[in-house]
Amino acid sequence: MPGIPRAVEWVDGSLRLLDQTQLPGRVEYIDCRDHASIYNAIRRLSVRGAPAIGIAAAYGLLLPISEEALTLESLAERAARLKGARPTAVNLAWAVDRMLAHARSAQNIPVSALAEYLLSEARAIHTEDARACRAIGEAGLPLVRERPRLLTHCNAGALAVSELGTALAPIYLAHDEGVPVHVYVDETRPLLQGARLTAWELSRAGIDVTLLTDNMAAHVMAHGLVDAVIVGADRVAANGDVANKIGTLGVAVLCRYFDIPFYVACPWSTVDLATETGQSIEIEARDASEVANFAGSMTAPEGIDVLNPAFDVTPAALVTALVTDRGVIESPDAERLVAANGN
Amino acid sequence: MPGIPRAVEWVDGSLRLLDQTQLPGRVEYIDCRDHASIYNAIRRLSVRGAPAIGIAAAYGLLLPISEEALTLESLAERAARLKGARPTAVNLAWAVDRMLAHARSAQNIPVSALAEYLLSEARAIHTEDARACRAIGEAGLPLVRERPRLLTHCNAGALAVSELGTALAPIYLAHDEGVPVHVYVDETRPLLQGARLTAWELSRAGIDVTLLTDNMAAHVMAHGLVDAVIVGADRVAANGDVANKIGTLGVAVLCRYFDIPFYVACPWSTVDLATETGQSIEIEARDASEVANFAGSMTAPEGIDVLNPAFDVTPAALVTALVTDRGVIESPDAERLVAANGN
Repeated sequence: MPGIPRAVEWVDGSLRLLDQTQLPGRVEYIDCRDHASIYNAIRRLSVRGAPAIGIAAAYGLLLPISEEALTLESLAERAARLKGARPTAVNLAWAVDRMLAHARSAQNIPVSALAEYLLSEARAIHTEDARACRAIGEAGLPLVRERPRLLTHCNAGALAVSELGTALAPIYLAHDEGVPVHVYVDETRPLLQGARLTAWELSRAGIDVTLLTDNMAAHVMAHGLVDAVIVGADRVAANGDVANKIGTLGVAVLCRYFDIPFYVACPWSTVDLATETGQSIEIEARDASEVANFAGSMTAPEGIDVLNPAFDVTPAALVTALVTDRGVIESPDAERLVAANGN
Repeated sequence: MPGIPRAVEWVDGSLRLLDQTQLPGRVEYIDCRDHASIYNAIRRLSVRGAPAIGIAAAYGLLLPISEEALTLESLAERAARLKGARPTAVNLAWAVDRMLAHARSAQNIPVSALAEYLLSEARAIHTEDARACRAIGEAGLPLVRERPRLLTHCNAGALAVSELGTALAPIYLAHDEGVPVHVYVDETRPLLQGARLTAWELSRAGIDVTLLTDNMAAHVMAHGLVDAVIVGADRVAANGDVANKIGTLGVAVLCRYFDIPFYVACPWSTVDLATETGQSIEIEARDASEVANFAGSMTAPEGIDVLNPAFDVTPAALVTALVTDRGVIESPDAERLVAANGN
């Protein structure tokens, strides 16, 4: 997208990450030259968004590049560490495991060529994500044409992926062809990815945006201002349950009550057929200070008990359709996901 | 409540307001000696909560006390100005109108005694609120005994009224008699009355509190952690629709989905039989900066469009019961409210 910096870029043997903790105030980059700094960047959400984390971890596995480090044993160690950075988004584990499988297949590759061989797989993951995002955009485009006043939660845009986005991809494509889209953006407490990232990237692309606190979604829906909701996903279980940013479940329940379609957009790499239902998805608990403080100011009484789950699980029954690079899957369930997986 | 400062107190001919914008960091007071400073305190939410605003405005009408000012004409002018401070909570208009009616009844009172005559009415409004809060507490107590794990939104506690609270009154009484209450508190963006005020006053009273961002309510309900929701109200229409802090509607919809009782607690002065339905309640729109900034930091891109309604309307159909000083009114509707009004 013109005007929107890349979240992840491989530049001259190191990984350049846009430091998303600084947005919207400052556009700054972090150049990572080893997997430890990529681990830290993932932990503290400098890079976030399930697909972007996967891409960063794929490159991260290689860094620093040295002959000793490119043994299977050493790569497996790095992989285990990287996977521990964030447990909920499946793309992280998926990308790292794919890199390891590629390394295992490198039996006849001379050590001198191994780095390039592995790098080509990271590049493939990166390129495939860009293709998947475009395919998601095209799959979702008819939905946005029909329902151009949308609400979204958190950030599932260009900043969360290689480029274009998942939930925002059809919105960008619709805007490009002149559809008068209007996006209501939940600010998404505690870390305000909606206010800081989604509102920022959509408005840089010239799209009409209205920012809301999370608790205003019901009010705008009750006033008939929202045609559909579209969000991303961190993991889709085999039965169609969706783990996504905390607050997604609440929005899905509102959609049911107000009879508004609730769409979940994601690349197929986010669908985890090995996880039976949403109940088995590990939900990352983050630090209490994210809720009790803001921008360095204490917003709650000292020592107060705080809950801070980073994600929640929306049951498949509340999902109108999954919008994926394998097409739109209406009322997703185990059978339909298995069928799409075979395609 | 021991340990919780009074929101409104008449001290030596002036009105002392707890400056709630400074909580939880600092306990500071504003001494108001004229109605203009009370108007400002209401506008900027130094004093907030429908009943507390009503009490403050009742006293405020008298200030400064002078013979010229205590004419009907001058009082009516002050009344009109005070009513303009916040349009949604009915208690403000109700209290000011009651003071004016009292002034009109003062036909045989010598001017020298008029101030005391009017002050006695403000004191009566204040005392009646305290009595009403106690009665709400007693009416709601059996509900809390049965369902001690509660969730509340915004602040409808001691800080919102004369003392004890509306939604929090039954919780305080239950705690006093040893019921193991646990309160999940929505932080309540944009101004964080839940985090700053409710979490503060409940924990000062020794009650177990867990603070949540607003978008976590669905998650805790889905995990079976909430037995009931209890909130306050800024105005209840004749058909039982409830205007309350933005976000209340969303919580009520969640209660319906998760089959959790949704209780609204308020004194009878909050019931406005002159307003037919919630659709005719004017919803105060507040400044965009409350959403786009947080604790003095910009959290959204410069110039972004923002919605900031201070309240929303929950349809009566989602209200399990009104908990009032006239008892518990289940499934409130026009007929039941008229009947209770006659009691």
